[in-house]
Amino acid sequence: MKKNVLIIGGGGVAQVVAHKCAQHNDVLGNIHLASRTVEKCQQIIDSVREKGSLKVAGELQAHALDALDVEATKALIDKTQSQIVINVGSSFINMSVLQACIETGVAYLDTAIHEEQDKICETPPWYANYEWKRKAACEENGVTAILGIGFDPGVVNAYAALAVSEYFDSVDSIDIIDINAGSHGRYFATNFDPEINFREFTGRVWSWQDSQWQQNQMFEVKRTDDLPVVGMQTSYMTGHDELHSMSQNLNVPNIRFWMGFGEHYINVFTVLKNLGLLSEQPVTTAEGLEVVPLKVVKAVLPDPSSLAPDYAGKTCIGDVVKGKKNGEDKEVFIYNVADHAEAYAEVGSQGISYTAGVPAVAAALLIASGEWDVKKMVNVEELPPKPFINLLNEMGLPTRIKDADGDRSLSF
Amino acid sequence: MKKNVLIIGGGGVAQVVAHKCAQHNDVLGNIHLASRTVEKCQQIIDSVREKGSLKVAGELQAHALDALDVEATKALIDKTQSQIVINVGSSFINMSVLQACIETGVAYLDTAIHEEQDKICETPPWYANYEWKRKAACEENGVTAILGIGFDPGVVNAYAALAVSEYFDSVDSIDIIDINAGSHGRYFATNFDPEINFREFTGRVWSWQDSQWQQNQMFEVKRTDDLPVVGMQTSYMTGHDELHSMSQNLNVPNIRFWMGFGEHYINVFTVLKNLGLLSEQPVTTAEGLEVVPLKVVKAVLPDPSSLAPDYAGKTCIGDVVKGKKNGEDKEVFIYNVADHAEAYAEVGSQGISYTAGVPAVAAALLIASGEWDVKKMVNVEELPPKPFINLLNEMGLPTRIKDADGDRSLSF
Repeated sequence: MKKNVLIIGGGGVAQVVAHKCAQHNDVLGNIHLASRTVEKCQQIIDSVREKGSLKVAGELQAHALDALDVEATKALIDKTQSQIVINVGSSFINMSVLQACIETGVAYLDTAIHEEQDKICETPPWYANYEWKRKAACEENGVTAILGIGFDPGVVNAYAALAVSEYFDSVDSIDIIDINAGSHGRYFATNFDPEINFREFTGRVWSWQDSQWQQNQMFEVKRTDDLPVVGMQTSYMTGHDELHSMSQNLNVPNIRFWMGFGEHYINVFTVLKNLGLLSEQPVTTAEGLEVVPLKVVKAVLPDPSSLAPDYAGKTCIGDVVKGKKNGEDKEVFIYNVADHAEAYAEVGSQGISYTAGVPAVAAALLIASGEWDVKKMVNVEELPPKPFINLLNEMGLPTRIKDADGDRSLSF
Repeated sequence: MKKNVLIIGGGGVAQVVAHKCAQHNDVLGNIHLASRTVEKCQQIIDSVREKGSLKVAGELQAHALDALDVEATKALIDKTQSQIVINVGSSFINMSVLQACIETGVAYLDTAIHEEQDKICETPPWYANYEWKRKAACEENGVTAILGIGFDPGVVNAYAALAVSEYFDSVDSIDIIDINAGSHGRYFATNFDPEINFREFTGRVWSWQDSQWQQNQMFEVKRTDDLPVVGMQTSYMTGHDELHSMSQNLNVPNIRFWMGFGEHYINVFTVLKNLGLLSEQPVTTAEGLEVVPLKVVKAVLPDPSSLAPDYAGKTCIGDVVKGKKNGEDKEVFIYNVADHAEAYAEVGSQGISYTAGVPAVAAALLIASGEWDVKKMVNVEELPPKPFINLLNEMGLPTRIKDADGDRSLSF
């Protein structure tokens, strides 16, 4: 029974994780938040207390931490006696936080692939460049490390694993579709860290097709689907974390990721990208100041967590899986619909943060209970999906399935 | 007979000014160029020598200068024995260069209104906040200072003065129209310093209507004209330097400025402005770096002088003047058409730099000859326009007039 959680990060997802951990602190124990800017953690704690999210009386504390500093992170893990670290900070800190967990022997969870400041859209499989190099170390130290346990990556990996193991004899294709049909009412904003958001789209689009990697340009390939609740939606083939692990862990020849974008988003993105303002490489101003354009764009855009109060509408994220069952063609869509306003009412965050944060806490609960405490490094498709899906059903992210038999909720 | 010219600036307009001074160095004497980045001046000198622009053998030298440093500027004026300073550097340096000219007793020319880093689209008349405060000092020291002697401001002020004095009994309106129908073939670029360019359009649009200042938003008011050579063109009411002096110096109740913009320019501008990336006020990145977004936009955009080799097409800039003559309604359009490729062939710069730089050299020649050596500070509409227009006809910027009698070249 692992317990006591250290949450690293101070943004919208950290807020969701803190609220959800608080709602389950009878199981998870003490909750600590750490971020470069301690005030952000304190605001989250204030929100948790305000909403009365703590299930039972328990520790809830904020800490200042530079998570790139492994020794400082180890010291904080020791001091807080945390046995589970949920890393929902910037993707730049993954490897140092993971190292601290390996050296202290505690469980590690994150929601996105590691990134280096000066590299984008890396050569696949991206995980092999970073996290997977620590697989042996995790196993030697009996460390449970669950990579990419947000919604996508995360829940969609579990949906894929479920489809492969339960609904098909052979799977030909998995198309993950991520639609945010909500509206924040601002001229333009990203739903999570603008820097990480844009970095996903400024380079090559990798997809797994015919059992090999294929390169495309952003906005080169699109599809239109009539989806539950959100209706007709256009999405674009995008590189994304889960392809890098699912291509290696599932025997499926075609795995693609599709993200919905409105024309306005594409216009703003295109202008910024073509001008060079989304570049991760520094430029020098006429005054001699060296600056990364993307970091300035981040600085002028709304803080994603500030969007929550006005956010309306729903998200629909799921896996379209096609293959054979008993010699027949078969297709299923396993998905979740989340509501921005409901998320805000419950935890003070918008739906994108909610869908990313809740699964990490569900995983922490499964580590605490031992069901997912696997003592090694895994991606989500390597874990049994059913207890996870059942837990998400109770925690605010219900799973549904749509196939030839209709559209219905899914539990086990 | 004033002679020896110090050109301050190292951009596209400085290049034009250097070539044109060289073509007239029998009159203008020695030519010196000074800029923060001396290499830019050296490149210009190389270009002048390459094209054989020097009319007679003579001095042509580059200097490094921080033109905000009045003492350093005075020292360079003394050292080079310059009697005419043509300031075509950034608008931020006007007041310090002017001060150096007043203290050394030499003639001063510039092509744009003074700007302060943290202020945009200032309260009219803008000149009264800066340059005009030195009117008395110029007169006391017998210093000739001609403000805004590019094309617009500059030539269009002379056109206005000509119309008021020669073609009308009373003038009701002057509409200055600036159309660049050329194409540089890049995704996006500004034709002169992006920082100065954008600063014109991010704040209030001032215009002089019914003998008072009126405020509008950018892109709020537009017109469409069928113009000579460039055809049907849409332009937008814009704040601009010349309105701030012409409103005070000419007895005309309506003076407006219209600049042509394509839909693509407007889209890029709108995206950047709405995001806050055109702001002249600093923001702080997540890493704690303080930076002015507009300066980063400038850093990623093409250097305007780099556009010249591929620039094709023409500009049309002129004054639509309406009023009464002998009791009848009358309208004239006094204008120039310039060609980007011809400008590049002659002086290695595109047409926008050409139209801005040539008039300053024409004015320098008129100061050298004494015709415009007025020993005080003036805006261009206060000077006799005919010798200026005649000189421009010979120097590559021919003037035409279109009225009820047809469309014809204009000279005196």
